[in-house]
Amino acid sequence: MNRILIKNVTLKGEIVDVLIDGNRFGKIAYGIEDPAARVIDGSNKAIIPPFYNTHTHAAMTLLRGYADDMELFTWLNDYIWPAEAKLTGEDVYAGTRLALLEMIRSGTVFFNDMYWHCFDTIRAVEEMGMRCAIGLLYITGQDGEVLEHNRRCHAELLEWNGGDSGRLQIAHAPHAVYTVSEQVLRQVADDAWRDGRVIHIHASETGREVEDCLKAHGKSPIAYLDSLGIIGPRTVLAHAVHLSDADIEIIAERGAYLAHCPCSNFKLASGQFRYRDAVQKGQCLFTIGTDGCASNNNLSMLEEMKFAALSAKSESGDPTVGKDFDIFRGATRTGAEAFGIDAGAIEENGLADALLIDLDNPRLVPNYNLVTNIVCSADSGCIDTTICDGRILMENKKIPGEEEILAEARRVCAKFRRD
Amino acid sequence: MNRILIKNVTLKGEIVDVLIDGNRFGKIAYGIEDPAARVIDGSNKAIIPPFYNTHTHAAMTLLRGYADDMELFTWLNDYIWPAEAKLTGEDVYAGTRLALLEMIRSGTVFFNDMYWHCFDTIRAVEEMGMRCAIGLLYITGQDGEVLEHNRRCHAELLEWNGGDSGRLQIAHAPHAVYTVSEQVLRQVADDAWRDGRVIHIHASETGREVEDCLKAHGKSPIAYLDSLGIIGPRTVLAHAVHLSDADIEIIAERGAYLAHCPCSNFKLASGQFRYRDAVQKGQCLFTIGTDGCASNNNLSMLEEMKFAALSAKSESGDPTVGKDFDIFRGATRTGAEAFGIDAGAIEENGLADALLIDLDNPRLVPNYNLVTNIVCSADSGCIDTTICDGRILMENKKIPGEEEILAEARRVCAKFRRD
Repeated sequence: MNRILIKNVTLKGEIVDVLIDGNRFGKIAYGIEDPAARVIDGSNKAIIPPFYNTHTHAAMTLLRGYADDMELFTWLNDYIWPAEAKLTGEDVYAGTRLALLEMIRSGTVFFNDMYWHCFDTIRAVEEMGMRCAIGLLYITGQDGEVLEHNRRCHAELLEWNGGDSGRLQIAHAPHAVYTVSEQVLRQVADDAWRDGRVIHIHASETGREVEDCLKAHGKSPIAYLDSLGIIGPRTVLAHAVHLSDADIEIIAERGAYLAHCPCSNFKLASGQFRYRDAVQKGQCLFTIGTDGCASNNNLSMLEEMKFAALSAKSESGDPTVGKDFDIFRGATRTGAEAFGIDAGAIEENGLADALLIDLDNPRLVPNYNLVTNIVCSADSGCIDTTICDGRILMENKKIPGEEEILAEARRVCAKFRRD
Repeated sequence: MNRILIKNVTLKGEIVDVLIDGNRFGKIAYGIEDPAARVIDGSNKAIIPPFYNTHTHAAMTLLRGYADDMELFTWLNDYIWPAEAKLTGEDVYAGTRLALLEMIRSGTVFFNDMYWHCFDTIRAVEEMGMRCAIGLLYITGQDGEVLEHNRRCHAELLEWNGGDSGRLQIAHAPHAVYTVSEQVLRQVADDAWRDGRVIHIHASETGREVEDCLKAHGKSPIAYLDSLGIIGPRTVLAHAVHLSDADIEIIAERGAYLAHCPCSNFKLASGQFRYRDAVQKGQCLFTIGTDGCASNNNLSMLEEMKFAALSAKSESGDPTVGKDFDIFRGATRTGAEAFGIDAGAIEENGLADALLIDLDNPRLVPNYNLVTNIVCSADSGCIDTTICDGRILMENKKIPGEEEILAEARRVCAKFRRD
């Protein structure tokens, strides 16, 4: 049985020992002895929860920096979609492993994914020890039915049902109101009501999406999705940039989660998320996602938190909005909660997900307030050790197999090079 | 004589050898042999120019995270100013060394500073091998004359005159239109016209500053400063958030430099810089500053570039605005130019300022476009080696004396702790 004892580590300003017993935290106290445990020295390190990335397309890391500074439709039609059409399952495996390398290095242990070739993503996640929600992607054709390709994949995924690790789950992932028919959205709502899975959907990302939805259905995307039963306490709304006051009320009332993706929203000039109105006043449940690397261009939840905190102040014109602690909670505990993962805090009996932070990194000196330092100053160099489900994924900034993963990703990317 | 030969390093996609001869680049070519030179292996590394931070208050790193998420005047009156009143010269030395540690680690070799206890800042900069512009700080009292404290400091600084290293210079640093009298601003303009030094000033940072200036002088801060002769080709305007079209024309016509500080502007909710109008259309010279750590909360030009690029797109509503190459140039070559430093590019005969970038960092894989990766994906973990004026300040991510600098900074900061 896995037992790890982290000695003399700083937890909320106190120096303690933290015992990991199997995949959960055991005792947390001063002076724990456990001869059966592997001991890690936590001196000059703090233990904090890791990050839960609630919206991404991991394998798109293969397209990091492939096409930048472009209009959305040029970018999609001329670059991203043609490149994606070339992606094989093996490529997605390589791209996901590259993404996981970066996530582990920057302190992320869970991601909510929406992409193709799911079994290749699953293989990478299982091997590298992360947590993940795999999306049953729904896109409908002219006839309003789910694409045949999606349908085949769904049957296989539902049979697999998350596998044995306990770290993976399946989510319903209808792409968006403009790519999924009303009949299929209703079906997804019914299915989710029965099977209790998360529904993951892009919603109100751009002004155009809202306009088109108003024209087609006489309702905002949020009101329309709500009328179909899509919005509930296990729904994750990615982006949610263009929200009316009425939309905010619906989301808060239903207990749905927002996956705020500030870097992507800024980069694609999608608009500014109304943090003060939706979260601070509106009490919507707030989590953070990085979106894919093609529109970010990395998967760092640290950067995403800083963009979230600072843009909340800028958008509202009020520097007291977007408090560091609230942003941090959105990136940790609330992100885990959205997916029913009993983690996101360093507490006895919780799942053993954690980061050891190097308090000797100059970015964390002085240390008046560690949460503020993590949200507004840290970068991945501050993260020494990443633990997921009681297993150490990175220790002393080393991840086993890194060189091979990079070599394979480079080999795959050679076919996209356009010189 | 200092001779360093960097073998097999990637420069703009080509593998070359780079010879450093004294404080300048010598030959850059394939297959250089030089038995007198110290050899560095540049394999799997790229050589790029380092960053020139055109607006900061370095010693304020001691107040990183000291007071966050507050209204500007609460923040200044209740926290920042009382803390600053406790700062001794030795504290400023310790704080500047902490700042330089962070700058070197994140690839910055020059900073334009405006702060107190200048000789303690100078001591830190000279010891640690950086470049710096030290501000002759002007703040005027009720009588419209420069504070006695400032005046004494100016006389000493002018006698020192930058010292012997060639790495330091003095700039005129009138604080702002609302803290410096008209007569003193006129005097500064005259002095700068004679001595050719840079003028460094906060300008149009907040809406309130603009309103107050319009009331007091019937002109915007830019128009007012221009009427006094302050705005010329050696002027660096920090923040410059609230610019009218007429302001932009003045700045462009005079050939003055903007020091854009996006993190600080976002964090203090000062407003959004008009990148498209001022830089892309208006052709104002564009550089980047981090401002002090109390309003950022770090000194990373990498983060600042990403905020600059992404906020330019968001502010204009156009994802083609704020192109990575233009942002990178602002953080490198144009920043150096603003201070008459013959650096900011890897070119024969230029001053030998450079970074070696670790191309095996996952954040830089794939590498379709290194500049895009640096601006939108990299963090300080990607920087392996920092070279300033031909001298290696960091190699293999190691900076000599780091532990002692951190210990000293912590000792100083203990007096600010408020529990």
